[in-house]
Amino acid sequence: MRIDMQAAAALLQRADRILILCHDHPDGDTLGSATALAGALQAMGKTVAVRCGDPIPQQYGFLFDGLAQPEFSPETVVAVDVADPKLLGKAFNAAYGARVDLCIDHHASNTLFAKETWIESDSASAAEMIYLLLQGMGQTITPQQASRLFVGVTTDTGCLRFSNTTVRTFRIAAELAAAGADTYHIIQTFFETKTKTFAALERLALDGMRLYFHDRCALMCITQEMYRLSGSDESETDRLTNLPRQIEGVRVGLTMRELPNGDFKASVRTHGDINASAICKRLGGGGHAGAAGCTLHGTKQQAINALLKEVQAELDTDTID
Amino acid sequence: MRIDMQAAAALLQRADRILILCHDHPDGDTLGSATALAGALQAMGKTVAVRCGDPIPQQYGFLFDGLAQPEFSPETVVAVDVADPKLLGKAFNAAYGARVDLCIDHHASNTLFAKETWIESDSASAAEMIYLLLQGMGQTITPQQASRLFVGVTTDTGCLRFSNTTVRTFRIAAELAAAGADTYHIIQTFFETKTKTFAALERLALDGMRLYFHDRCALMCITQEMYRLSGSDESETDRLTNLPRQIEGVRVGLTMRELPNGDFKASVRTHGDINASAICKRLGGGGHAGAAGCTLHGTKQQAINALLKEVQAELDTDTID
Repeated sequence: MRIDMQAAAALLQRADRILILCHDHPDGDTLGSATALAGALQAMGKTVAVRCGDPIPQQYGFLFDGLAQPEFSPETVVAVDVADPKLLGKAFNAAYGARVDLCIDHHASNTLFAKETWIESDSASAAEMIYLLLQGMGQTITPQQASRLFVGVTTDTGCLRFSNTTVRTFRIAAELAAAGADTYHIIQTFFETKTKTFAALERLALDGMRLYFHDRCALMCITQEMYRLSGSDESETDRLTNLPRQIEGVRVGLTMRELPNGDFKASVRTHGDINASAICKRLGGGGHAGAAGCTLHGTKQQAINALLKEVQAELDTDTID
Repeated sequence: MRIDMQAAAALLQRADRILILCHDHPDGDTLGSATALAGALQAMGKTVAVRCGDPIPQQYGFLFDGLAQPEFSPETVVAVDVADPKLLGKAFNAAYGARVDLCIDHHASNTLFAKETWIESDSASAAEMIYLLLQGMGQTITPQQASRLFVGVTTDTGCLRFSNTTVRTFRIAAELAAAGADTYHIIQTFFETKTKTFAALERLALDGMRLYFHDRCALMCITQEMYRLSGSDESETDRLTNLPRQIEGVRVGLTMRELPNGDFKASVRTHGDINASAICKRLGGGGHAGAAGCTLHGTKQQAINALLKEVQAELDTDTID
C-alpha cells in the first residue's frame, strides 16, 4: 500500500528493533539515507541496524561513524532507496524481500513490494525525503546527521547539477549546510578528488569515446583491459557515467563497463525529453527518466548494437529542449 | 574609503547616469554582478550601462538580454569585482581608473582605488554581495535577475564546490533558485557541457600533466600547439584550471597556458593552508588564497622552473588539513 510521510513517521515511531536495508552496489543516497534514518531512530532510543547486501565502499565508511550496529532479531524491516526486492541482493532478498514493512523510495519504478511504501518519484534523492521525515518527527539535525543526508542529496544529483535537482533540493542542501554538514570535504571526496588510477582510467575511457546518430549519442566502453592498464577497478567507474552526456549536442550518454564474466553493465544518461528508463526497460533494466541502467550479454559489439538500437528508437521521438 | 552595504545602497539610490565597469578577461561573476546591478538600477528608473574592456564571451551574452545599453556621459562610475584599476583594461583604466566612485568587490587584494569601496573579502563572489544589496534596496529578484546572480554565484565557486563556498553561498543559491533562476541550464552551460574541441583539448592537457614534490603539486601546460591540434582556443581554458588540483594528494594545482607572444599565464589553485595568492604575488600576480594567477616570461622550462620554485617555498610551510 502507498502511504504518505506522516503515516511513515507514525509507523517508525511505533516500531522498535528496526532493520534498515540498503540496495546492493550501494551508493551515497541509499547509505546516507539509511544511516541518517538509523541515527535518528537510535537517538529516539530504538534498537536499529543498517545492513547492505554488498560491502560498503571505503569512501562511505564515515557515514557509519557513531552508529551502533547491534545484532538482533528484527521486528520491523525498512528498505531505503530500494525499488525492487532483487536490489537487496540475493541473501537479503531471500531473508527479507517478502517481509519489508516500509519502503522509502524515490524511484517511479518501485514495484511496491513492501507492505507500506512511501514514494516521492519527483524527489531527487531518498535523502531529501529522509530529511523531511526527520523534521516531521521533530528530530534535531546534528552536523553528523546533516553530513549523512548531504552525501545522499549531492551524490544522487551530481552535486546539484542533474535535471532531477529542484528548488527543494537547493533549499535542503542549504539547510543541511547551515545545520553543520561538512559540505566542503564531502564535495571534495565525491566530486573533486580523483585517485591517480582513476585519472588514468578516465583518460583511457575518454580516448575511446565514440559519437553516433549525428553526434546526438556518445558511447564510452570501459573494458577489463582498461582496468589492468590503469590500475583502477570498477569501484571507480560510477563517476565516469556522466562524461559522455557532457559533450555539446549529445542527448544520450552511454557508458558500458565490461564485467568479469564478459557481460556489460550499461548506464544511460539523457538530456531533455529522452527517457533513459524506457531505453533500459526494453533491455531488461530500469531507473529514472534521466538516468537508468541495464545489463547486456554477448560480445562487446553485440552489446553496443543492442544498446544503440534502443537509443535510436528513443532518439526518433526527441524534441530539442 | 571603505564603506558598508548600507552606504553603498544609499550612494546608488542617490545616483543617476551610472556606468558599471567589469574587469577585463570577464568572467561570470563580474558580468553576472554588473548586469544584475544594472537591471535593478534600470528598474528604479535610472540611466545605466554596463561596459567591459574586453569583448563579452558568447556564452555570457544572455546576461545582457532585456538590459538597455544607452550611450551617455556618466555622472557616477561603479566598478564590480575589480580589485585594481589595471583590470579595467587599458582604455577604461585611462578613461575612468582615477574616477571610480564606488567599487563593489570581494578581493582582499583590492587596492582601494575607488572613492568609496565596499569589500567583503570572505564573500565567495561579488554576486552574493549584489544579491544582498538588491534585497537591502527593496528590489524584487525577478527570474532574469536571479539567473544573472546565479551565474556569478556558481562560476566563482566552481558550482558551490570550492573552499570559498559558505553556508551563505548555499542559502543564496537556494533563494535564487526559488526566485526562478534557470539553474539547470546555467549549470549545464558553464559546468556540464563541453564542446568537442574543448574535450579534445582537455585530453591533450591531461596527457601532459606532470606531478612534482612527492605528488603534492600537479602541473598542466597548455600550448599553442595544443590549440592547433584540438581546434580549441584560449577562451576554453579557464575550465581546465581546476583539473590538476583534483588529483588525490595534490595540494597545489598549476595550469600554464602559452600566450600568442610566447609568455605564459599561470593559474594556481590550492587546497588547505597553501596560499595561492602568496605564490603569485612573488611572481608579480595576485588573487585569492585558494585561486590566484600571474604571467611568466621566458621559455616554457624557465617559466615552469620559476613557478615551481615559488610553489616549493609555499609547500615547505604546509600542514596537511
